[in-house]
Parts: sequence; structure tokens; C-alpha cells
Amino acid sequence: MIIVMQPNADKEQIKHVEEQIKAFGFQAHPIYGEFKTVIGAIGDKTGFDSQVFLNMPGVETVVPIMKPYKLVSRELKSDNTVVDVNGVKIGDEKLISIAGPCAIESERQIMDIACAVKKAGADMLRGGAYKPRTSPYAFQGLGEDGLKLLAQAGQETGLRVVTEVVDPRDVELVASYADMLQIGARNMQNYRLLQEIGASKKPVILKRGISATIEEWLMAAEYILYNGNTNVVLCERGIRTYETATRNTLDLNAIPLLKELTHLPVIVDPSHATGLWRLVPSVSMGVIAAGADGLIIEVHNDPSHALSDGPQSILPERFAELMVNLKALAAIIGRSI
Amino acid sequence: MIIVMQPNADKEQIKHVEEQIKAFGFQAHPIYGEFKTVIGAIGDKTGFDSQVFLNMPGVETVVPIMKPYKLVSRELKSDNTVVDVNGVKIGDEKLISIAGPCAIESERQIMDIACAVKKAGADMLRGGAYKPRTSPYAFQGLGEDGLKLLAQAGQETGLRVVTEVVDPRDVELVASYADMLQIGARNMQNYRLLQEIGASKKPVILKRGISATIEEWLMAAEYILYNGNTNVVLCERGIRTYETATRNTLDLNAIPLLKELTHLPVIVDPSHATGLWRLVPSVSMGVIAAGADGLIIEVHNDPSHALSDGPQSILPERFAELMVNLKALAAIIGRSI
Amino acid sequence: MIIVMQPNADKEQIKHVEEQIKAFGFQAHPIYGEFKTVIGAIGDKTGFDSQVFLNMPGVETVVPIMKPYKLVSRELKSDNTVVDVNGVKIGDEKLISIAGPCAIESERQIMDIACAVKKAGADMLRGGAYKPRTSPYAFQGLGEDGLKLLAQAGQETGLRVVTEVVDPRDVELVASYADMLQIGARNMQNYRLLQEIGASKKPVILKRGISATIEEWLMAAEYILYNGNTNVVLCERGIRTYETATRNTLDLNAIPLLKELTHLPVIVDPSHATGLWRLVPSVSMGVIAAGADGLIIEVHNDPSHALSDGPQSILPERFAELMVNLKALAAIIGRSI
Amino acid sequence: MIIVMQPNADKEQIKHVEEQIKAFGFQAHPIYGEFKTVIGAIGDKTGFDSQVFLNMPGVETVVPIMKPYKLVSRELKSDNTVVDVNGVKIGDEKLISIAGPCAIESERQIMDIACAVKKAGADMLRGGAYKPRTSPYAFQGLGEDGLKLLAQAGQETGLRVVTEVVDPRDVELVASYADMLQIGARNMQNYRLLQEIGASKKPVILKRGISATIEEWLMAAEYILYNGNTNVVLCERGIRTYETATRNTLDLNAIPLLKELTHLPVIVDPSHATGLWRLVPSVSMGVIAAGADGLIIEVHNDPSHALSDGPQSILPERFAELMVNLKALAAIIGRSI
Repeated sequence: MIIVMQPNADKEQIKHVEEQIKAFGFQAHPIYGEFKTVIGAIGDKTGFDSQVFLNMPGVETVVPIMKPYKLVSRELKSDNTVVDVNGVKIGDEKLISIAGPCAIESERQIMDIACAVKKAGADMLRGGAYKPRTSPYAFQGLGEDGLKLLAQAGQETGLRVVTEVVDPRDVELVASYADMLQIGARNMQNYRLLQEIGASKKPVILKRGISATIEEWLMAAEYILYNGNTNVVLCERGIRTYETATRNTLDLNAIPLLKELTHLPVIVDPSHATGLWRLVPSVSMGVIAAGADGLIIEVHNDPSHALSDGPQSILPERFAELMVNLKALAAIIGRSI
Repeated sequence: MIIVMQPNADKEQIKHVEEQIKAFGFQAHPIYGEFKTVIGAIGDKTGFDSQVFLNMPGVETVVPIMKPYKLVSRELKSDNTVVDVNGVKIGDEKLISIAGPCAIESERQIMDIACAVKKAGADMLRGGAYKPRTSPYAFQGLGEDGLKLLAQAGQETGLRVVTEVVDPRDVELVASYADMLQIGARNMQNYRLLQEIGASKKPVILKRGISATIEEWLMAAEYILYNGNTNVVLCERGIRTYETATRNTLDLNAIPLLKELTHLPVIVDPSHATGLWRLVPSVSMGVIAAGADGLIIEVHNDPSHALSDGPQSILPERFAELMVNLKALAAIIGRSI
Repeated sequence: MIIVMQPNADKEQIKHVEEQIKAFGFQAHPIYGEFKTVIGAIGDKTGFDSQVFLNMPGVETVVPIMKPYKLVSRELKSDNTVVDVNGVKIGDEKLISIAGPCAIESERQIMDIACAVKKAGADMLRGGAYKPRTSPYAFQGLGEDGLKLLAQAGQETGLRVVTEVVDPRDVELVASYADMLQIGARNMQNYRLLQEIGASKKPVILKRGISATIEEWLMAAEYILYNGNTNVVLCERGIRTYETATRNTLDLNAIPLLKELTHLPVIVDPSHATGLWRLVPSVSMGVIAAGADGLIIEVHNDPSHALSDGPQSILPERFAELMVNLKALAAIIGRSI
Repeated sequence: MIIVMQPNADKEQIKHVEEQIKAFGFQAHPIYGEFKTVIGAIGDKTGFDSQVFLNMPGVETVVPIMKPYKLVSRELKSDNTVVDVNGVKIGDEKLISIAGPCAIESERQIMDIACAVKKAGADMLRGGAYKPRTSPYAFQGLGEDGLKLLAQAGQETGLRVVTEVVDPRDVELVASYADMLQIGARNMQNYRLLQEIGASKKPVILKRGISATIEEWLMAAEYILYNGNTNVVLCERGIRTYETATRNTLDLNAIPLLKELTHLPVIVDPSHATGLWRLVPSVSMGVIAAGADGLIIEVHNDPSHALSDGPQSILPERFAELMVNLKALAAIIGRSI
């Protein structure tokens, strides 16, 4: 890290910081400028909180130089990670499509949607059994009954299934029904949940937190890898900004930037990113053209009566149309779907 | 709610929406404008997701009229709630001051700080035993050993103690040591944790989420009250904005606005809100003058070697100075400290 | 608009609001709910500030129903506007590519770049002569000398030229050299500038303000149309968010949403949206796949010595590669380039 | 500045950057770490764009060390600047209060309000003659007729008057009527306007831009000082965030932080910061307790019929009450009003 001293810092203060740098186990390399002295601290101490220097007399700012993450970094592992979900590979040349309702509502509903998205060419089925809702009065999901219906729909259609887990106590149970777990935006920094999922080794989709920076998101993934699970897929789902015309703001830049910074696969959820079904097809095309490895899309056969997220769900027939367009797009960017 | 139809919506579509309004159990009151028709839906159905209308043909937008929260609302309960933490009352005429380190590091550290803040006039001691850190490599807290040290420091000084709980599995354990629980910003929408704390009846500080709206924050409090615990204190701790000169942006408006919207007490954490100890005293004076019921401040006797949050911790002597100034301020706004 | 009364509003207050609604020239349509009364105010009064009701006793909130813009609205004009820049058409089936340096630095520089981007297939040349810089110490552009160089480069290559105008006093001068004007992000709400450009009838690119909502952006365009100029092209250039890994956050959702709301063409500036040249090609592909009508890209032949925006400028050879990829993309979305 | 090289940068690349550092007139001081090399560039070149290094092979990031502003910095001038507005001093021990309507509407209106705020103890009268409105259909102000009414109200009451200028062409005219100019939030980066006002030497209130960082705001002030005018008062008026419950978010941290960074006076506009008159008194108390030098408050005698900003205007009687409370507050923080 680099410690920048205040313009009026005296020799005593500079000496004190140098001593502290050494006491923490680094080497100190001061550079004396005309107005300010900066001191480089050399050494690799992962997890060291460089901000402690901020409280020492004469210090103006501290600039970290090393990235805080390691295991997820492309500097450590230059080739792409491919996550294998019982045979469905995410992060490979083939683009992945995951589709299904926000919430599992009934056997009929999940089976109908599963068949429709399978027919349209989806690789995996999504559906929530435990729903983190902003209101305690809203539908909270069917729980384990929902998991059973999801697993059944997966078996009957041959689709792999993914579902959200919201409580560290549920990881084992959910993992017993699902091919892949999902960590929702609100739980991106639920570290106990990350630790349990890290220990489980199950493939997992890690959604970006509602206002998470890319660095914080990668640090959340780092928690999972650090706890032993390398099967992590990152999912951009829009971030919170001042714009209210859409539910969230899809951060398109994040896709090529993540491809530089990390070896993990990156998919996109255009449903949450927009909150408006009419925008979903255009946005889906855009993120794939920008380099995403796949999509997770909310599809419902009766959105007006969906128990959650109706306004952002598309009909199965629109999903099928989108798949046709994605196929043409994949061809010209050297991928398939 | 009000359903706004598109300008080109036809009679069929308007009729269909009216029928759906009735099918959901509301009364329908259409108003035919020159350009647009709007339809009022009358009835009280807490938890009903008004957005389902968005997917019906001809609908432009839906405007909710009822607030989504009830139990926390001043409309329901007009007098201030006073939360009693084993004799220390929060939300009453007397302002409350909670002080202590970010993390409990050792017996010596917590005892020294506890004695210092007690001497300066603090009502309660804070200190973290379970730390939600962005990095898996950073100090994660002493766990139950920390809780024991905190409880001991509380007993020896007579200060009530408050500490964060991060896992629904830990609520009972933490509640057995602490007088009051804290839900951190990252867990404001960890609904399982809210439910367990709701069931525990223990007084709790609910921090505002890093980018939570005031409505989402009140909904999180609603979860706790809905599950049976009315002893909730809201804590503004700054929100995430584009400004990087400070760690967060303290939303001063939130204080008088919350006083209008809810009967729950409101305190402020100036340490996280600023991230810079030099700003803590001024900001503390400001929020009390604006109507906050108290403060929770990070105080450390050796911030340069604190295991977390050193840069935002103030020294005990500065805390003592601040308490003197707060006393003068309290007097002129009809309160005491 | 809809006026929502407080739950405890009395008959007197409701009557007073109804009278005021009529006094302002609207019809009043009250709906009496179980908890709240809402009053619809019918009538079209463009520019009426509905918020005046907020100050009347018993009023809780006011909900506008009519969109505040008219002339830019697709409700008014359903077919796409095509802006003709001396023969180059923006908003038509053919995608448009505008390329060139951030700032015009010398005859040699602008000519070299103009030739290179012409060769790669660009339709128009960009280059700034008046630069709005955050620092008074930074290069502010060559002024009229720059305009002359730009016009000359345009004539010699056959490219149409576009350049920014920052002062209402300069509109006529800039319009005498350039085929198209540009309003930068910092001037999106410089209403005097909008008025002058509205009066000039010259084609204009209106960049989105740094933190402008889509509605505010459309209102800025409305100012130009209202003053008589319909030749407006909207340009998404990223918005300010909390994310600091990139210069701005490209709002991908804005593209399909604008296509719904307005008949004006929409292009994207991936250079400012990302701030990092390495991300420009991927993002360019993404926005075109999502429905944008064209791109405006910073291209420089020596980015390390560019007088501004070097880090986000791509080399002419990378621009040429991108054009090849865009051609393939255009073909599969029913467009050309 | 510090140039951070990529971990895999080779000797050639490092050497090239060192040579470029020298070519730009700096000294180069490399520090070779275990994983990364960082190179310090020593020398003071105000206005140099350090980001040019970002485009050189092997460079990862560039960290500026020097602050980009000079003239406004407390490092340059350690004592507070006191701005003298024809005898009314801003930034001195005495707190300043500026009050009046958003827009001047009529002789009667401005005179009535002027008399009322004078009686309550205001130092200065505010009132807009040129209104930057988001809608071209909204009331745009009375123009020069408004300026005359404002000047007249100032003369009759003995209040100094301040009003906004929105066009560089109007600076001289507005300065001939007003004691002090105001640059609104939308024009904070209207550099031509800043330059004209810099040249005019007239005292000026510089409002923070809608989403301006503190650094950008200080750079805007730097433009004015650089052009010759040191009579600048900074005005925090809330920033744009995701929170929609209030019009803007008041950044309380900005007040003590600005007091550290700059010698210029800092006042606050609680009316725009909140958008809700009910919050104005609490917020006013808060910002003064946090160290602001004064307030600029919208006061209207008939807010329900104000031609703009009615919802955030307080009645004269509430302003008078607030002044009484501010007097008590001033006494305990060592100031007067």
C-alpha cells in the first residue's frame, strides 16, 4: 500500500509511520516530494487492513495497491472456470439459458412452465421455494413442498434445477433437491450463508447485491471459494441507482470488466435488472453480445396472476422467440446456444 | 391503488381491468379523463401485490395508495414507543449514548474502553463479537469469548451492552449475554434473522441497510413487530451514494421524516456514516439538533491498532468532550443526556 | 393528477381541496376509500405544477398521471424520427457510426484520425473545440481554430462533422462550421443553450446528464423541440452511480425504454460510459444488439499523449475491427452499417 | 502521482513508463514489490492529466496524490474567508440567514415576504427572476422586471438581495440589481458562467451540483477564484440518491468535511435538500449544530399558490419560530444570529 502524508507532516510523524509499517511486517520505501511525502509499504499480507494508518498523526490518505481478492482473480488462474451442473456446463463456449417462474406456485404451474421452456430450448429450470419478500404480508414461497415440485419438474423434463437458499440452516435441505443453489441479491453479504455454501461444494449462482460494487461482489465470491467451493457463477441483476423508470439499472460495463478480473462465469438476469417484461428481450440480446455466458429469465404462463414478479415475467412464447434470436446472435460471436 | 390505463386503451381492456379488480376483492371506481382513464381500486388487502395489474393489456402504471407497513406506523400508534433496555430507556425525553469499540479484541481493551465511556457518561456499551467483514481474510471477531468479555465489562461498569447478531442460529446465544441485539446494515433484509429476533422479544437496534429506502427499512422493522417484538430502535448509519470523500452519506432528512412516519425511536451511528473520526463530533451535534433520540459511537483507546474500523473511532477523551457539548445542546432542545 | 388525502383528513379539508382543484380549472372526482380519500383531478394543463396541492391541509401526496413531455412522446408521433445530417440519416434502418478524438489537437492529428476512421467505415467525425473540463488548469480546447480544422477534415474525407457547443453565445459560430451540434452531459439542463439550439434548427446530439433521469432527459429534448428544432438525437453516455470501477454506469435498459417512450433516435457513447478503452468494443456490441441506432466512439492514434480522455480512446485499428463485428451483428438484427 | 504496474508487466514496460514520466517533466521513483511495481512521479504540474499513463502497456492504475484544487484549499490559506455582501458578512462568527420565495411573482408578494422575514431577523432576501425549470411549459420567472422588484424590496427593507443568474450574457445585468449572485445546482459546471462570474468580482453563492462530488464542487469554486473572484460561498442543497421519500438527500458530512478542506464559507439550503416544508426546521437546526455558517430558506406567504417550490416553502411565522430556536442554538456553539 501507499501511505500519503499531509503536506505539513513533520519528520517525527514520517518516522513514526515508517516504524509502524515495519512493525506490521512490511518494508518501508519513502518518496519525498516537493509538497508531500508518500511511503510505499512492500509486502503481501492478505486481509491486512491498510486503513489503520489513517489514524496516525500526519497521515492524509492510504492507497491500497494489491487487490483484496485472490482465489477468484484471473491473475491467479488465467483460464475460464467452467461450472458443471450435473452435465450442463456454464462458462464454456455454449451459452446457457435458465428459465422459469419467480416462485413455484403449484404442481400444474411449474410443470407447464417447465415443459414450455424445455421445448423452447432452455438448459435449466429456475423457481423459488423460499422467497425473501420485502413485506411480511406477501407470499413467502411453498418451502420444502416447492422444492419437491421443482425437483419433480426437473426430472420429468430433464432440465437441471436451480433455486434460492436464504438461511444457512437450509443449505443441506435445498442441496438435496436442487442441482444448483442461488444466493439472492439481499444475501450477497450474508457471510454465514456464504460459508455454508462454500462448505457444501454445490454449484451456486451468486447474484450481485442491490448496491454492491464489483469488488465487494468478487469478495463475496472469494468467501465461497475460500471455504472450499469453486463452482461459483456470478449473476448481474441490475443495481440500485436514482433512476426510477426501471426497477434496477443494468450495469452493462460489468460484463466485460468481470471477464478481465475473474475466471468465473458471468450470467445476467434481465428480469430483475429491468422489472419490465417488455424490455427483457432487447436487454437479453445486449448482454449476450457484450460477452455474458448466459441468462436467467423469469418466464410465467399467467403473469397477471403470478404470486410474485409478474410484471417482469415473459410468456413462454416470447421466451421461445428470444431463443431463436439468441441462436442467430450466438453464431456470429463464436458461440452456440 | 390506482390503475392508470394507457391513452390508447380500449373499452375492452378497461372492462377487463375492472373485472380483475373485483376478482381480487376490491371495488372499482373508474375516472374517465380526456386522455387517460384511471381506475381506483378500493379495499384494504395488506400484502397484496398491486403490480400484478402491470401485466394486463392496456395498463400503463399502477400507483399504490396505502402504505405497505402498519404496525410501525404512526397512523396506527400516535405516541412514541419507548424501548426499555433493562432500565435504560430509548425514545424518551432523555437522549441515549451508546459507545465502545467496533470489535471486542481482549479483556483489557473492552474493560479500559468501558470504564472510559462510563466515566464520560455513556448509557450503554457496544462491541462486536461476530463481525461481518467484506474479506474472508479479515478478523471475524472473538465469537462467544467476545460475548463473555462484553457481558463482564457491562456488569463491572453497570453499562447495558449491545452487540450484533449475524446468524439466525445465534440469536438465543447472543441474547443470553447481551441486553440488546443489533442487526447490521448488511442484514437489514435477512428475513430469517428478523423473524428469529421478532420471536425473541429482546430489544434490538435495526440499522438501515447500505442502500435501503426509508420504506424498505420500515418494512424490515415491520417484520420484527409482526413476529412479536415491539422493542425496535431504528439506527441511521449513512447510505451509499456516489460520494467517495466519506465512507457513507448521512441522510439527515431521514431523522425528522421517520419521526413523522413511525412511533419507533431513531438513533444515529456517526462513525459508520462518516468513516472519519474527525467528522464524528460535528455530525453527532447535528443529528441530535435535528431530533435523533441518541447516538451509537465507535470509541477506541488505540485506534491505530484497532482490529477493525480504526479510522472512524474516536478516542475516549474526545468522546468525553462531545458529551459535554451534547449536554449543552440537549438543554436548549428540551431534552437531557 | 390524483390527490391522496391523509387518513385523518376531515370533510372540510377534502372540500377545500376539491374547490382548489376546480379553481385551477380541473374537474374533481373524489373516491372515498375505507382509510383514505383520493381525489382525481381531470383536465389537461401542460406545465401545471401538481405539487402545489402538497401544501394544503390534509393532503398526503400528489400523483401526476399525465407525462410531462408531449412533443418528444411516441404517444404524439408513433413513427420513428429520422434526423438528416446533410445526407447522413440517424434513426433509419442503417446504423450510424461517429468516431474521432475527444479534442481536436492539431491539423495533423485530426486529419490522420479522420482518414483512419473514414477508411474503417465511419459515417461522421467527432472532435471537441470547446472542452468543458472539471479543472481550470486543464486543456480547454482550440476554440474556433479547432472548428476550422474539424471542418477541413470533414471536407477532405467527406465525413459529416459534429462538435460540442457549451455557450449560448457560440451556437451560431459553431453551427457555421459543423454539420451537427452536440450538447454535453454537463449542459443537458443549460436551458438557455437548449433554447438557442432549439431556435437554430441544426441537428443536435443531446447527451444524457450525468445523473439525469430518463424523464428529465426527455424534458430537455422537449425544450429543443418546443423552441422549434425537431432534429434531436438522444445519446446515452453512462450515468453516475456508486460504482467506481468504471467511469460511469451504462444504463442498458434506457435503450429499449426510450424506444417505447419517444420517436427520437437513440445512440450510445461507450467511451464515456466506460472510461476504459478495453471495454469499448464489448459494450458497443451490446448496445447495438439491444436496439441503439448508432455509436459515437472516441478514437485516437496516440492515446497516451491525447490532451484529454486518452484512457477511454481506442486506436483506429481497433475501431476498424469493431466495425467488422458490428457489420455481422447488424445483419442478424435486420439492420446495416 | 503513483503509477501502479500490472503484476505481469515486464522490464521493458516499466522502463517505458519511467521514460514517459521524465518526458512529462517529473522525476521517477520506482518501488519494486513482490507482485507489483509502483512508480512514484514527483513534481507539481497543476492541470496535468495523470490518466494518460493508463493507456501505456503494463499499467494497471494511476493514483493522483496532489489535490486538483489550490486556491480554494485550506492548505493554501488556513484562515476562514469572510465574504462581505455590502456589509453583511458570511463566514464570520455571526450566522447568516437568507430567506424569501423561490420565485418573485409580484410586487405585493415580494414586499410582503421581505417585510415578514426582515421582522423575523433575516439578513438577506432571496428570490428568483430567472428560473431554470425542467419543463418548458412551467413559469420561467419575471426576468428583469423581477430583478427590479427584488432590488426595490431590498431597498425598502434594508435587506441585501441575492438572485440566480443562469446565462453568461446576464451576469452584468443581474449584478447591477443584486448584492449577491447565485449559481444554481444545474449550472455548477457551466464553466462559461463560472468564468463570467469570476471576472465580475461580485459575491456569489455556488450551489452544489445535483450529483457533484465534493471535489468537483471545489473545482467549480476554483474556476471562480482562478478567474479573479474570491467572494465565493458554498451552499449544500442536497444530492441525488436512490431515496425518493425526500426531494434530495442532505449530505450532513459535507459540512465538517468542507470546513477541513477549504477556507470558504459554507451555508445550507434545507428547502431544496428536503423538498418538504415540514422537515425544514429540524434540518436547519441540524446543519447549524454541525457547523454551517448560515441558511438560505424558501419562505412564502401562500405556498399553495406559489408559482414554484410551494411544497418546500415555509410560512413566515414558522421562519420566525425557527429564528428563535436558532438563536438559542447559536449561543451554545459560540456563535450568534
